[in-house]
Amino acid sequence: MKIAISTGGGDAPGLNAVIRGAVLAAVHRGWECVGIRKGYDGLLGQEQLVPLGPAEVRGITHLGGTILGTTNRGDPFHWRERLPDGTWVEHDRSEELVRAFRAHGIGALIAIGGDGSLRIARHLLDKGVALVGVPKTIDNDVGGTEATFGFDTAVQTATEAIDKLHSTAESHERVMVVEVMGRHAGFIALSAGLAGSADVILIPEIPYEMDRVCNKIRQREAEGRHFSMVVVAEGAVARGGEEVYLDAERRRLGGVGDRVARVIEQKTGKETRTLVLGHLQRGGSPTTFDRLLGLRFGAAAVRLIAEGKFGHMVALDPPTIVSVPLDEALAAPKRVPLDSDSIATARDLGISLGD
Amino acid sequence: MKIAISTGGGDAPGLNAVIRGAVLAAVHRGWECVGIRKGYDGLLGQEQLVPLGPAEVRGITHLGGTILGTTNRGDPFHWRERLPDGTWVEHDRSEELVRAFRAHGIGALIAIGGDGSLRIARHLLDKGVALVGVPKTIDNDVGGTEATFGFDTAVQTATEAIDKLHSTAESHERVMVVEVMGRHAGFIALSAGLAGSADVILIPEIPYEMDRVCNKIRQREAEGRHFSMVVVAEGAVARGGEEVYLDAERRRLGGVGDRVARVIEQKTGKETRTLVLGHLQRGGSPTTFDRLLGLRFGAAAVRLIAEGKFGHMVALDPPTIVSVPLDEALAAPKRVPLDSDSIATARDLGISLGD
Amino acid sequence: MKIAISTGGGDAPGLNAVIRGAVLAAVHRGWECVGIRKGYDGLLGQEQLVPLGPAEVRGITHLGGTILGTTNRGDPFHWRERLPDGTWVEHDRSEELVRAFRAHGIGALIAIGGDGSLRIARHLLDKGVALVGVPKTIDNDVGGTEATFGFDTAVQTATEAIDKLHSTAESHERVMVVEVMGRHAGFIALSAGLAGSADVILIPEIPYEMDRVCNKIRQREAEGRHFSMVVVAEGAVARGGEEVYLDAERRRLGGVGDRVARVIEQKTGKETRTLVLGHLQRGGSPTTFDRLLGLRFGAAAVRLIAEGKFGHMVALDPPTIVSVPLDEALAAPKRVPLDSDSIATARDLGISLGD
Amino acid sequence: MKIAISTGGGDAPGLNAVIRGAVLAAVHRGWECVGIRKGYDGLLGQEQLVPLGPAEVRGITHLGGTILGTTNRGDPFHWRERLPDGTWVEHDRSEELVRAFRAHGIGALIAIGGDGSLRIARHLLDKGVALVGVPKTIDNDVGGTEATFGFDTAVQTATEAIDKLHSTAESHERVMVVEVMGRHAGFIALSAGLAGSADVILIPEIPYEMDRVCNKIRQREAEGRHFSMVVVAEGAVARGGEEVYLDAERRRLGGVGDRVARVIEQKTGKETRTLVLGHLQRGGSPTTFDRLLGLRFGAAAVRLIAEGKFGHMVALDPPTIVSVPLDEALAAPKRVPLDSDSIATARDLGISLGD
Repeated sequence: MKIAISTGGGDAPGLNAVIRGAVLAAVHRGWECVGIRKGYDGLLGQEQLVPLGPAEVRGITHLGGTILGTTNRGDPFHWRERLPDGTWVEHDRSEELVRAFRAHGIGALIAIGGDGSLRIARHLLDKGVALVGVPKTIDNDVGGTEATFGFDTAVQTATEAIDKLHSTAESHERVMVVEVMGRHAGFIALSAGLAGSADVILIPEIPYEMDRVCNKIRQREAEGRHFSMVVVAEGAVARGGEEVYLDAERRRLGGVGDRVARVIEQKTGKETRTLVLGHLQRGGSPTTFDRLLGLRFGAAAVRLIAEGKFGHMVALDPPTIVSVPLDEALAAPKRVPLDSDSIATARDLGISLGD
Repeated sequence: MKIAISTGGGDAPGLNAVIRGAVLAAVHRGWECVGIRKGYDGLLGQEQLVPLGPAEVRGITHLGGTILGTTNRGDPFHWRERLPDGTWVEHDRSEELVRAFRAHGIGALIAIGGDGSLRIARHLLDKGVALVGVPKTIDNDVGGTEATFGFDTAVQTATEAIDKLHSTAESHERVMVVEVMGRHAGFIALSAGLAGSADVILIPEIPYEMDRVCNKIRQREAEGRHFSMVVVAEGAVARGGEEVYLDAERRRLGGVGDRVARVIEQKTGKETRTLVLGHLQRGGSPTTFDRLLGLRFGAAAVRLIAEGKFGHMVALDPPTIVSVPLDEALAAPKRVPLDSDSIATARDLGISLGD
Repeated sequence: MKIAISTGGGDAPGLNAVIRGAVLAAVHRGWECVGIRKGYDGLLGQEQLVPLGPAEVRGITHLGGTILGTTNRGDPFHWRERLPDGTWVEHDRSEELVRAFRAHGIGALIAIGGDGSLRIARHLLDKGVALVGVPKTIDNDVGGTEATFGFDTAVQTATEAIDKLHSTAESHERVMVVEVMGRHAGFIALSAGLAGSADVILIPEIPYEMDRVCNKIRQREAEGRHFSMVVVAEGAVARGGEEVYLDAERRRLGGVGDRVARVIEQKTGKETRTLVLGHLQRGGSPTTFDRLLGLRFGAAAVRLIAEGKFGHMVALDPPTIVSVPLDEALAAPKRVPLDSDSIATARDLGISLGD
Repeated sequence: MKIAISTGGGDAPGLNAVIRGAVLAAVHRGWECVGIRKGYDGLLGQEQLVPLGPAEVRGITHLGGTILGTTNRGDPFHWRERLPDGTWVEHDRSEELVRAFRAHGIGALIAIGGDGSLRIARHLLDKGVALVGVPKTIDNDVGGTEATFGFDTAVQTATEAIDKLHSTAESHERVMVVEVMGRHAGFIALSAGLAGSADVILIPEIPYEMDRVCNKIRQREAEGRHFSMVVVAEGAVARGGEEVYLDAERRRLGGVGDRVARVIEQKTGKETRTLVLGHLQRGGSPTTFDRLLGLRFGAAAVRLIAEGKFGHMVALDPPTIVSVPLDEALAAPKRVPLDSDSIATARDLGISLGD
């Protein structure tokens, strides 16, 4: 038996642990393993297949990034190529990919990726590729699993940043706005905001009103707390749209963090600064939780293959790793439930959620 | 409404987060809060009750230890006191404690503690004290909850130690034995051992045979891996007892880590060193996960009181905080299930569990 | 003897260690200690003097921020106050401050601050205030001392950020521009850039040419290294001015990091992102080095007072703490020497310094 | 030109940074580089020479351990080999080593090591090997240099451990004894003890009296501080010998940390626990300071070769890297000066040094 591993989409701390878990579990069964460099580029592009054995996955559990490389631009159904004249064209190269799998004698594929990569995997399954999925998302918004590797590390990175900003916010009596990841789901903002003692947390699931945000800051001011910490998910949106607060010119500038900061400064007169954490959240050594989850996901993916459960992905249903059909997971992306106890905790702690 | 908070048993990172969560959630409802210093010493001994408001719980989420102090020697049913002649006597001071609650106008108690402290709380409930519990255990062995605060931090501390020892073990071609906490349950050893790429993991749930352990080390030696990392839970036991391996004199010396190391050195001829992590695992700043869980537990405990669910404790049933009757939780302490995927993962990775 | 402690200017990790060192060393001599809240606001404004004894400085060595608060707006010679109509006026309140020192029986002052605060202290000395200085600068640009507390922590924070960005820069084949502190001196950029394996480091001491920067990126591209890491000090300047590269409109936007990123993207066609670390560098728990230096500075300041060496500041001349006249230190701010071995090391490692 | 790099003695965080600095600086000059595996085993034993270029030293700055391996058993003048009958014999294989250098066309050697390895290097110099040294010691006891890489990381590891133990020491009202490295010099104990707010610090340079130690603990007890933190260097010795405190049987057991703990418990009646940090201090990712110092040392070693300064080692004379004749450095190992300001600071802070 020969299996291949591919990773697609953005980095997530723990990717290398998944690879290690899968490779060792495969070798343990006497199987052969290869890695496809940079999504499917190792089969369709200039990159190569790389053999993966115990030596290749030694000492990588705690390393950020991925030894296979990754990419956001590797959809075999819409493969982009640059022509000599500089323009881009798209081909469907999926058939070619399926042939390449066969040509290399690959019996099964472990596709590690987020929503996008898992959808591509789902289509490859229809083309006859025997595959299982491993969900990967910093934002924790893939359905069917309680958590994915990388999320805990991202929350830790964001919390550490909020911690560091707290002391200077207080010394300088400023409002600090920290923009964290979370395009559709506010898990990072909510978790890091709670753990970092934020005063305001704005998430995509709850449209915010700037008056509520500013009232919270004014209320703190009145209590002698001359600084405030605002955590904003990149996907947070104003109720009724931002045109309520900013003219077209100003909406153009910066992300939601900058825009929220500008309105706060204007409305409250408090000096306000923004920090956009950006890719800091995707990097670095995974936390112990993410290392462990990665190893377990990797080993479980191999067990799924051994059981012939193709079209499924591994998932965490604490304390157990289970399998979930890809169709089911992709049908219901995760969002912060408004009746969750984390939301209740935030309100109990007196944190404003902007509503 | 006036509520009191007590903490009993050993330290666990995240305790201060629980206290903060509970105090802010209580204040948010217009309630008053007091802390009982050092278990019940603040009511029965020389310590005092301390008022707890927003100012007292400011900036404590990330601090190790507990602002209330804690103790292992505070069972009101068996209160120990030292007589002038140096001997110790035990009284049942539970009635006195119940009166003290009433005298101070305490309407409900949040008892934060492990198995021992929660049992005491259970008995106080029988005496008419309105109370709810918050489970606390580094070892993760309290029943009814998927996890408790402090466990994730302990696993991280242990994993970091294993990481640090790995490089010198390799350079010096030694066997390193790391003894971690876990008297009855091997969760810390298993998690840290997996995350830290241990070669052997010994846990209380699986009696070990030293021949298996030594075979693993010899096998690595044969593969050119001239070092090994062995993680042992303090409660791990040899199949058939240690007299199989060590004479009475030697069994007396040191903990299980030292004993395992001595047998390895003797049987394999490899230089072997032991590190006992001990209290390192109880200290330090809690991880983000533990901060968050602490805050959520604290706020949820106050909600339990508001709902009148006395005799229950808060518990994590991911992703939600639920309540569980104390009787139910105490009836079934947690152990590592032998059919868990973590055990399967360990075996898939080629790790010896000593069996 | 009664001494007072004031802190001025931005936060620097290690400030609390200085305060602890000074207070314990003073108490050890039987002296009394008070802290002036927020620069001189504790004597001239709405803040108070706070008594400082062992209890007040317990457990603060590793805390970021300062227990005394700080401010950038507290020059007693140019004291700013807001009139009821919202406009600001400036007074010279230095005489009043001197009288307040006398009125409170303060025999000597320990002024902790950067260039600005130490200059104010120098003028107070002329007015008859017996004082000693403790240099404080994240940027390491105060003269007369090999290092100041806070610098090592800032370098560590910046290096950790560069580490985290490295893996995603590589996965996504991007150029990352990280803007770090250093208005006049490039110590943070040079140290963190070296430690974090940057490819380009731009510092105020060496005007940069964008062609050199872009050539380095293109050269890496040609070697198959499809990503680059650029570290820019906030005070770095283009040789001949930025109008060489950007029109007026674009120069207006963002800091030097953003501007450098825009030119790189335009000239090389590589996707380029910026991260501005900003106040992250001023916060957080001090490194061991900064804790230690803070404690030593604080204790040494008290020894200076005991020796009557007023008008001096403590300074590090490794491995010893010495004293330097304030005039001498203020006369010669520190810059990265162009013939330093750190510069030579950067060039030896193949790092472009933009020249 | 072809140069070789060898590392000898125990691990020190920063070793890989030295190797990277040297290799890149050599390549930058158009030189060739090889690494000798495991001390001189790569030339005399079963290990090999490994080519070292940019690819081999990529991404290793922050890794603990050494990519070349190291060993304590590689003195070519006293080379130990195991005979078939299990006994060990020693040969002088230095001539053979010199011939091997020539046979491989090695023009110069960079010998990275502590006191022992540098002495061996000194003898090889006499045999005609063109070499320069790079000092390596966790303990900071090599003469001629203000600091060596690894020391800062060791101090940080020890300080973090003390931090973690503090909270539980306080909760449980115990005395904690932490034994840290430092056979002949107390730099680690003194630095970590200061930074970690120890109450007692025992170093080899100051023979201790247990009465003084116990008095400090009793004094704290009287002040209501029911716990104490004692930091002991492994080389600390009792004034007049330990037979003053312990009988022969008990002296035999454990290291100095255990012995000190036993006497404290006996004399004060306080529950006392020991933690021996051991090899934790040699491992882990180097601090930024150590990464930087390692890179600078490595690059400077290559410059020494370029300048033909054989028989010298690189050294830190802050803020500059200088060169020092090996003879000079070896003649005067470093100890904590009793009149240093660190000692004065410790006394000013009320810390007992046991004298």
